[in-house]
Amino acid sequence: MDFKPLSGREFPRFSGIKTFFRLPHAPLDADYDVGILGVPFDGGVSYRPGARFAPSRIREMSSLGRTYHWSREDHWANRLKVADIGDVSTVPLSIEQTYKKIEATVLPLVQKKKKILSVGGDHSTTLPLLRSFGKVHGPLRLIHFDAHLDTYPAAWDCEYHHGAFLRHAIEEGLVKEVVQFGIRGPLVSKEDLDFATKHKFKIFTMDNIRNTHLNEVLKTIPAFDATPTYITFDVDALDPAFAPGTGTPVPGGLTSYEAQRILRELQIPNFIGGDVVEVCPASDSSDITSLFAMDVLFEYLGMC
Amino acid sequence: MDFKPLSGREFPRFSGIKTFFRLPHAPLDADYDVGILGVPFDGGVSYRPGARFAPSRIREMSSLGRTYHWSREDHWANRLKVADIGDVSTVPLSIEQTYKKIEATVLPLVQKKKKILSVGGDHSTTLPLLRSFGKVHGPLRLIHFDAHLDTYPAAWDCEYHHGAFLRHAIEEGLVKEVVQFGIRGPLVSKEDLDFATKHKFKIFTMDNIRNTHLNEVLKTIPAFDATPTYITFDVDALDPAFAPGTGTPVPGGLTSYEAQRILRELQIPNFIGGDVVEVCPASDSSDITSLFAMDVLFEYLGMC
Amino acid sequence: MDFKPLSGREFPRFSGIKTFFRLPHAPLDADYDVGILGVPFDGGVSYRPGARFAPSRIREMSSLGRTYHWSREDHWANRLKVADIGDVSTVPLSIEQTYKKIEATVLPLVQKKKKILSVGGDHSTTLPLLRSFGKVHGPLRLIHFDAHLDTYPAAWDCEYHHGAFLRHAIEEGLVKEVVQFGIRGPLVSKEDLDFATKHKFKIFTMDNIRNTHLNEVLKTIPAFDATPTYITFDVDALDPAFAPGTGTPVPGGLTSYEAQRILRELQIPNFIGGDVVEVCPASDSSDITSLFAMDVLFEYLGMC
Amino acid sequence: MDFKPLSGREFPRFSGIKTFFRLPHAPLDADYDVGILGVPFDGGVSYRPGARFAPSRIREMSSLGRTYHWSREDHWANRLKVADIGDVSTVPLSIEQTYKKIEATVLPLVQKKKKILSVGGDHSTTLPLLRSFGKVHGPLRLIHFDAHLDTYPAAWDCEYHHGAFLRHAIEEGLVKEVVQFGIRGPLVSKEDLDFATKHKFKIFTMDNIRNTHLNEVLKTIPAFDATPTYITFDVDALDPAFAPGTGTPVPGGLTSYEAQRILRELQIPNFIGGDVVEVCPASDSSDITSLFAMDVLFEYLGMC
Amino acid sequence: MDFKPLSGREFPRFSGIKTFFRLPHAPLDADYDVGILGVPFDGGVSYRPGARFAPSRIREMSSLGRTYHWSREDHWANRLKVADIGDVSTVPLSIEQTYKKIEATVLPLVQKKKKILSVGGDHSTTLPLLRSFGKVHGPLRLIHFDAHLDTYPAAWDCEYHHGAFLRHAIEEGLVKEVVQFGIRGPLVSKEDLDFATKHKFKIFTMDNIRNTHLNEVLKTIPAFDATPTYITFDVDALDPAFAPGTGTPVPGGLTSYEAQRILRELQIPNFIGGDVVEVCPASDSSDITSLFAMDVLFEYLGMC
Amino acid sequence: MDFKPLSGREFPRFSGIKTFFRLPHAPLDADYDVGILGVPFDGGVSYRPGARFAPSRIREMSSLGRTYHWSREDHWANRLKVADIGDVSTVPLSIEQTYKKIEATVLPLVQKKKKILSVGGDHSTTLPLLRSFGKVHGPLRLIHFDAHLDTYPAAWDCEYHHGAFLRHAIEEGLVKEVVQFGIRGPLVSKEDLDFATKHKFKIFTMDNIRNTHLNEVLKTIPAFDATPTYITFDVDALDPAFAPGTGTPVPGGLTSYEAQRILRELQIPNFIGGDVVEVCPASDSSDITSLFAMDVLFEYLGMC
Repeated sequence: MDFKPLSGREFPRFSGIKTFFRLPHAPLDADYDVGILGVPFDGGVSYRPGARFAPSRIREMSSLGRTYHWSREDHWANRLKVADIGDVSTVPLSIEQTYKKIEATVLPLVQKKKKILSVGGDHSTTLPLLRSFGKVHGPLRLIHFDAHLDTYPAAWDCEYHHGAFLRHAIEEGLVKEVVQFGIRGPLVSKEDLDFATKHKFKIFTMDNIRNTHLNEVLKTIPAFDATPTYITFDVDALDPAFAPGTGTPVPGGLTSYEAQRILRELQIPNFIGGDVVEVCPASDSSDITSLFAMDVLFEYLGMC
Repeated sequence: MDFKPLSGREFPRFSGIKTFFRLPHAPLDADYDVGILGVPFDGGVSYRPGARFAPSRIREMSSLGRTYHWSREDHWANRLKVADIGDVSTVPLSIEQTYKKIEATVLPLVQKKKKILSVGGDHSTTLPLLRSFGKVHGPLRLIHFDAHLDTYPAAWDCEYHHGAFLRHAIEEGLVKEVVQFGIRGPLVSKEDLDFATKHKFKIFTMDNIRNTHLNEVLKTIPAFDATPTYITFDVDALDPAFAPGTGTPVPGGLTSYEAQRILRELQIPNFIGGDVVEVCPASDSSDITSLFAMDVLFEYLGMC
Repeated sequence: MDFKPLSGREFPRFSGIKTFFRLPHAPLDADYDVGILGVPFDGGVSYRPGARFAPSRIREMSSLGRTYHWSREDHWANRLKVADIGDVSTVPLSIEQTYKKIEATVLPLVQKKKKILSVGGDHSTTLPLLRSFGKVHGPLRLIHFDAHLDTYPAAWDCEYHHGAFLRHAIEEGLVKEVVQFGIRGPLVSKEDLDFATKHKFKIFTMDNIRNTHLNEVLKTIPAFDATPTYITFDVDALDPAFAPGTGTPVPGGLTSYEAQRILRELQIPNFIGGDVVEVCPASDSSDITSLFAMDVLFEYLGMC
Repeated sequence: MDFKPLSGREFPRFSGIKTFFRLPHAPLDADYDVGILGVPFDGGVSYRPGARFAPSRIREMSSLGRTYHWSREDHWANRLKVADIGDVSTVPLSIEQTYKKIEATVLPLVQKKKKILSVGGDHSTTLPLLRSFGKVHGPLRLIHFDAHLDTYPAAWDCEYHHGAFLRHAIEEGLVKEVVQFGIRGPLVSKEDLDFATKHKFKIFTMDNIRNTHLNEVLKTIPAFDATPTYITFDVDALDPAFAPGTGTPVPGGLTSYEAQRILRELQIPNFIGGDVVEVCPASDSSDITSLFAMDVLFEYLGMC
Repeated sequence: MDFKPLSGREFPRFSGIKTFFRLPHAPLDADYDVGILGVPFDGGVSYRPGARFAPSRIREMSSLGRTYHWSREDHWANRLKVADIGDVSTVPLSIEQTYKKIEATVLPLVQKKKKILSVGGDHSTTLPLLRSFGKVHGPLRLIHFDAHLDTYPAAWDCEYHHGAFLRHAIEEGLVKEVVQFGIRGPLVSKEDLDFATKHKFKIFTMDNIRNTHLNEVLKTIPAFDATPTYITFDVDALDPAFAPGTGTPVPGGLTSYEAQRILRELQIPNFIGGDVVEVCPASDSSDITSLFAMDVLFEYLGMC
Repeated sequence: MDFKPLSGREFPRFSGIKTFFRLPHAPLDADYDVGILGVPFDGGVSYRPGARFAPSRIREMSSLGRTYHWSREDHWANRLKVADIGDVSTVPLSIEQTYKKIEATVLPLVQKKKKILSVGGDHSTTLPLLRSFGKVHGPLRLIHFDAHLDTYPAAWDCEYHHGAFLRHAIEEGLVKEVVQFGIRGPLVSKEDLDFATKHKFKIFTMDNIRNTHLNEVLKTIPAFDATPTYITFDVDALDPAFAPGTGTPVPGGLTSYEAQRILRELQIPNFIGGDVVEVCPASDSSDITSLFAMDVLFEYLGMC
């Protein structure tokens, strides 16, 4: 297996079986450096469902993906063995079973030091991913793009849902440091902020990001040490104009360029994995949200 | 409370707070004869979710509803006290909790001899409704419109899902007689039919319905005795051209006219309640599926 | 001016300035036999507006129009001088002014014995058309395709609206005979039928049309004498599956084939004009309703 | 009546009868401080109609509304009694009758010193609102977000339409001071500006807003005295990317963040009411325009 | 390789890499009986392009496919080794090069007596398929579902396009017998029929099909001898209500049920291959046309 | 012929035969200064087709066009004779024939010193336009808005396609100087940049444009001499949020305001013509991309 994307000059980009970046579909135990994994589950959402279709739709749109990163001057496909390792076999009716299946799939791969980029699914799917990475790499730094804090308590007696993954990740000791981008109100109440305050989140709210020129903001991002670092990108960090295809959109968010630039400027000595979540194709407009999700994966590949 | 729809001559039909048929929103314990209830839950689906938004969208489209049934020569609003009794408080992440909440809401109403028309939600929501009706009215006759048999076994170790409600209803002794309309292939295997055969379902497949003129088919519908009778209408009984807004569409189904005529010709001495399920607004086209769902409710009102 | 459609072999059908059937855009006083006129007005609707965009969208879709009618064995473009005579200058905020402008445009053309096919616009636009034709040709026979009777009283103190045109046409003595196709319930009340009964409408309800094979139904259409005959086609006569792009859809309607066959079988010795109304492009699905409206015009051309 | 939004923890946000912010639906004469009122009328538009459906769609999307404003550190629901007071009974065919009905509904409420936030409807509906507020509060300061000046003359002999409300408001003496945001070309002619110049509008054009960093622009907003101040927000002030769901979009407009920030930074000692208009759901993309309209209401609540 | 579809009980149907019927993606030279092949090319269309995306979208929707045919009492996956053999490498800018590539791919497979079911692409792609089958199996019987005759002459000096494949197939001696279903007007001119008449096509027009009950029509289908038989299904044979997702729709077509029944009743002793073409996903409504295309493939599998 | 747009006060903007800016449709040899020409061809695309429908859709949306440019203080319709000169007769199946037809149409007009603004079509249509202008005006300056460099080599043995027009224009000596705006990665490889480097393109990448305040960037645009200058605007220069209706979108692009400002600030002493290309209406959202394309034409008119 050569781990190269199918060339658009060999097969036009609209053709062929659709995999992430037109990469070969490899079995879980193949010899790749980076595996891109679908996690089609949306049983954790509180409003619009549909993210279960995101892996398939992002595969489709990632046909437009390219391999050379102009700013990084990096050609990932020449440097890394990357594969589409398929989807986790999820259970649409049970978050508990799905959590077990995600961890059962991902933990062994992390133990083999694979880098895993996953494509949700709703944000509840990040917890079992963090469990897999946390168990192997110790407590992690989490870089978190989102409109929401995701530190919410249980809802309707359900401990796990898409607004609570970060609270659990911290309570379970998987994550020790959090940097957030894109967070904004309105909130349910002032107390929403308590958890973040207590755990010393570094939050770049939309106001923080827009109060001066972006280049100035970028200079304030902390220099990261070698703590194993995971990035989770909820596309609702973007403004609904840039990411209409999501379940709980919030006006006043990032532009696609801002997100790209922040991702590009992050200096992460020890990047272990990442995900892009909460793409809801049924609410998208001309697939621009899926297209952007592909771009997040492209930035991750530059960090691998 | 006068239980009359808001007049389109008083408030144009696009205006006002949206309730089913522009009826007053009444508390559960109000003095109505027939309560129309939303059951916004889609945690039981195996493919496209989204039916959780159906009660809201059908309320919107039912603004176009009228009150006089030409064929029945019946003006339901003059004869019955009908109310919108709101939505069940469902739990999007848990089918088990949702089942309890549906039954906790509906059983007391059935015990008071209310007729309840409910608007799903996916087809898994019919089981707790049948439990409520079955406990009060003894084993029931079920008239079931669907493309699918819905007698399937557990899936992914989940006993309850939208393709299994009828199996449970029979195994739990809630239903003793089943008449189905619209059923068609393809099937997963020949064994799919065993349960229906064993329990002597009377099935009007699409071939049965189309093999002669509809009027001839209608004559073959059995004369029903006074057994308490519940009707469940899954909109995928219709062809996808007539009901694109559903989660698991199957080509080759009923037309809207055929469904109306069958509903109209049924002679049901003891109609106790009914539901319309599996409307998925995010997949609809100009809301024609929600509009049809309103029409099913209109036919039910004629039977009350 | 040669009054021939632009050939698809000369200019592909997606190209060129869009006119009805790719015909030349002629001034009102040109030497055509049949003028196709847009009437972009939707100020008479009670629910979804948007029919003001129908003439433009039907021009677009009529690029797919052809000129030879297989059943009639008739090639209209060889036999008739047909032109697109543009749109009436309507007043979106005033039905009264619009009525005057429509009549001021159309009456002189009818006086010159032109045949006028018009493209609404909502159904309120038919009244000034009937006034124009009625003043010249005496009381008319009206053939009326619709889901609704359109004999409703004033609404919100507005005498004229899209559900009242037929009542006025009869009360003003413009129409003496009415044949309706596609009418169906639900109705507001039983009294809705009184006007039709009093004025001896010949109504082919959906039940009448579906109670036997279509060919048998067609035989029951009366033989028409030489009374000047106008046809008005409200696309909601079709089922919403066939005409989703309309303002007040009603389930259980005609198929496109049934409508074509009825139009084709009508034997009208003295056809003076017709219209197609209530196409609402914003609610359409892949423009199938606009495409059908083009087909209605095609049938009219065969009658000219 | 407790005037609290229905909790998302009690009823998931997709469930329940839809009211603004899930607030109780109160009668006009209830004991609220702030009433949110729908004004479903689009008979004043010159291009795309459809805003009549905006109150219903914004109710739906305001289910995502929250109550705590992070920047203002304000929890409106704890401080104010806010209610959904339903829709004005409009007359879709008559702007004159609709004007009377709006004023008849709103004037008595303003006289009782209620604050009214209204949800159009097209921009023609703002005039009767200003008449109601102007008659009670004397000549007003108007803060006006829009792409257009809305000082246009009569059109097609119709004095009142959606591009003329501001001219009338000034000519009638209801408004004495105007501050505009988002205004941009192209214009019909240079003379379009004469009215604004004559009446000393303070205009923040897009060029004014983008010529320096937003924080600098915000400093140039005048300090407002206690003149009673009304805000009208036409969503076409936003760029079509942020507000595609509107009737007369103009490229080159505000971002959602800019609009939020401007609204937030306004220091208004005497805020009496406001509206958000020109949302056209049929042209929207994933309801992002309705969602933004909810956000405007949220900012207004922070000013009440 | 076991040539079984991925089970919906193992992986939910929304998950996994998308192949036709969730079958394994096999190389061209694998040991299958039936290969399902994508032919993503739409360079031959005269109106709406977009069919190049059909193979991908039909793979997506065929996740809903099942394996047991109720009427045929046949379980294709138990009887046949079926595989998704990927897409032909087409050239979007050149019909000539694409023709060569299709034939270069398919001819060797036909020579090995594989059955090939292909998924267009526009109808111009059928010619190189017929060349491949014709060269091996001698002159063929062609069963052709379509709204159009597809016997048109060259257009704009281009000999090959989507309306001319059948003329070439006959002129090249590939096809000796043609049976057509769904054909209907309007036509460009009466001469359109000359080619069909000369070559003795057996045409079931829409009028033929609707002039009596479908069961009577089915009896008039000729008994077929062992002539090698190919079926080509242009989805515009269906009415636009049933197949909106196509490039040149024509009102008045088949229902999905009629098409299924005709396919099912055909008795074909020597079925060698078939295709489904002209699905245009960008014009589809909730993917109902792609879903139907999957159904055509399902019927073909029953004939293999 | 008076070359004035039809007034919105005479005919509402939704009415009338649709031409660019509601201008008269003039024959090619009429006495206009500036001709706006449609070039409906998308046979050169490598991904999503559909730009063939752009001229028609942009005509529709340009009904919203106005004539006075606020910043330029210029009223183009008072100063110039502008006409819609219809569409080139393209050949959808042949880029070679289409190139000949475009040049045969445009070259004679350029020779008569007409200014031509054209509306594609895909970007491959710019080459024959540059040939027409280059032959008359000698080697040109090209100002090029795009996400892509468009200097790519042949693909699938096809020399001409939408990503190669600029390479040919330079190799054929038609263009001697290139200034690009909006260019961004990802690229296929580092070598993509070689052609631009070799030919000394002045590139304003997205990073260049966003690294400081726009006003600072604008100051760095070179002062242009009297070299004949052509502008080609590929709408994918915009971010997909602002231009979803295009065939190969790339996240991270220009806002509509940035594009307007850059166009406005360009000081071009010798503007000879321009085009706007790659609008794909089938992928658009509420026609915002077509609306923006109209705005580009409006800026061009200010330069004529």
